[in-house]
Amino acid sequence: MDSAALHEEIDSFFESAPPLKDSAKVTDKLKQFIEFNSPSSGEGRGRRVVCVTSGGTMVPLEQRCVRYIDNFSSGNRGAASTEYFIMAGYAVIFLYRRGTSQPYCRSLPEDPLLECFEIADDVDIQVRQPHSEAVKGAIRDHHAAVAGGLLLKLPFTTIFEYLQMLRIIALSMRSLGPYAMFYLAAAVSDFYVPWKSMAEHKIQSASGPLDMRLMQVPKMLLVLRTEWTPMAFCISFKLETDSKILLEKAGTALKKYKMHSVVANELLTRNEEVIVVTSSGNILVHRDRTRTGSDVEDPLVELLVDRHSTYIKTIST
Amino acid sequence: MDSAALHEEIDSFFESAPPLKDSAKVTDKLKQFIEFNSPSSGEGRGRRVVCVTSGGTMVPLEQRCVRYIDNFSSGNRGAASTEYFIMAGYAVIFLYRRGTSQPYCRSLPEDPLLECFEIADDVDIQVRQPHSEAVKGAIRDHHAAVAGGLLLKLPFTTIFEYLQMLRIIALSMRSLGPYAMFYLAAAVSDFYVPWKSMAEHKIQSASGPLDMRLMQVPKMLLVLRTEWTPMAFCISFKLETDSKILLEKAGTALKKYKMHSVVANELLTRNEEVIVVTSSGNILVHRDRTRTGSDVEDPLVELLVDRHSTYIKTIST
Repeated sequence: MDSAALHEEIDSFFESAPPLKDSAKVTDKLKQFIEFNSPSSGEGRGRRVVCVTSGGTMVPLEQRCVRYIDNFSSGNRGAASTEYFIMAGYAVIFLYRRGTSQPYCRSLPEDPLLECFEIADDVDIQVRQPHSEAVKGAIRDHHAAVAGGLLLKLPFTTIFEYLQMLRIIALSMRSLGPYAMFYLAAAVSDFYVPWKSMAEHKIQSASGPLDMRLMQVPKMLLVLRTEWTPMAFCISFKLETDSKILLEKAGTALKKYKMHSVVANELLTRNEEVIVVTSSGNILVHRDRTRTGSDVEDPLVELLVDRHSTYIKTIST
Repeated sequence: MDSAALHEEIDSFFESAPPLKDSAKVTDKLKQFIEFNSPSSGEGRGRRVVCVTSGGTMVPLEQRCVRYIDNFSSGNRGAASTEYFIMAGYAVIFLYRRGTSQPYCRSLPEDPLLECFEIADDVDIQVRQPHSEAVKGAIRDHHAAVAGGLLLKLPFTTIFEYLQMLRIIALSMRSLGPYAMFYLAAAVSDFYVPWKSMAEHKIQSASGPLDMRLMQVPKMLLVLRTEWTPMAFCISFKLETDSKILLEKAGTALKKYKMHSVVANELLTRNEEVIVVTSSGNILVHRDRTRTGSDVEDPLVELLVDRHSTYIKTIST
């Protein structure tokens, strides 16, 4: 596809999308957060800023949305990576799907409120013993990161919200030059129903099978990389269930979208190991198997932070 | 469709479904719960038992599930109704979609752990003042209902899990005769991809639009009503976004599936009012608008409990 055709597709996607609610508020929060952490501001400590995207995007099939297509994604990768980026000194813009995994909360049960707490003596709330440290740690570390200006959380639900917010974030981060990083771990839908061609009302199930035609979501990665934030260090993810085609597809994405690295992961082993595909070769990253509960995101973020440092040096000289 | 064809469709749905995990455990829990609350047992207080279904069912599009179709449903209707049924003396089997609204937790924010709690003096967890009563009430009432044998929670995710569990529950509740009630508030998918014809791997997005053909999910309501639990009092729900066709469709469901009532609700006004469609006429039920925060489920459950009482008397004489 040539560049003009891609731009036309992207323009048509954004024009047809329902307008983002609170877009002024989001822009405002971003401005404050980036100014606070910007190297040129006196306030923060001149941190690098990474935008971590996390969770799946919902594709509505009806304007008054009853049915939708979704992507499976717990958001654990994004939540874990956010913790390691903050530990490495970054400020994180966490663009996450509502209801998915949150930084510092990964070791808690599915429904923390009902599973971790009880009422003592009919009056006081207390944490059930086995969860005590995890619950305290989650609340303390999460609030500290937000209060310290190191974590800005922005939730989305639909593919329309996600891409509109990603564009706003990218344009806001432009001023950071090479200190900006994108770590695009969200499971973004490949197909969607253009808003204007969408059924207004619930699709009827009166008779027979349902035939649906979904359009490809325009590939925004190239535009993010080359136009929205041309200086940022960009990492995308490729998830496949079939290992045979995984590396090939990751390599294609690397070239096609001019990413600095593509993290290739397979559905069944994604918590054990990933392959970082770069133009100078592939690097296998696996979790520290000598420690129970270690995360593959720990060495992965370490490697990428390192490469980001090299990138900043290269750009600056 | 004749009965033989329907049974064939249903058999083929269940045969092709991936086997339910923990089915023995689910059956066991149900047995204990129903025995405890059964009128013929000495242990409980001979309560009526209602199965409340809640939330939407997920339809996988790939066997190693990356993409799926889903139904929008917060589960608020089911969670609220569960509270009112317990208040009315029922024991509730709450068959709910993982992650949706839970009984007694409806007034809490989206992420209660991170929004309602804080660490005081770097050590103790405490509830933030405005949420204090809501959080205490949620934990206390929820645990009391479960511990008292009045609430059995069974989670599902996919349409396959939902229908398999519904069948197990129905067969377990059969022994309760007319004291059993079904309150089918879940948003069940109308369309699905049969497991065996599903792509094993992630659908590729290389080129062009995606064409999909979805099959109708066999309508199990009639079989639930006439075969699985022929004596139970059965309420189903009809949600539409177009008010013009709502009552007609609810009336059709009433006759076609031999329901005792169908609760008709429109997407935009569903928290304000519903129409209970019965063979003897339609009843408009709305929330008490003189009280802020009142629920439409309060008068709705009251009406249905009343009709259930009449039904039990009719059957027993």
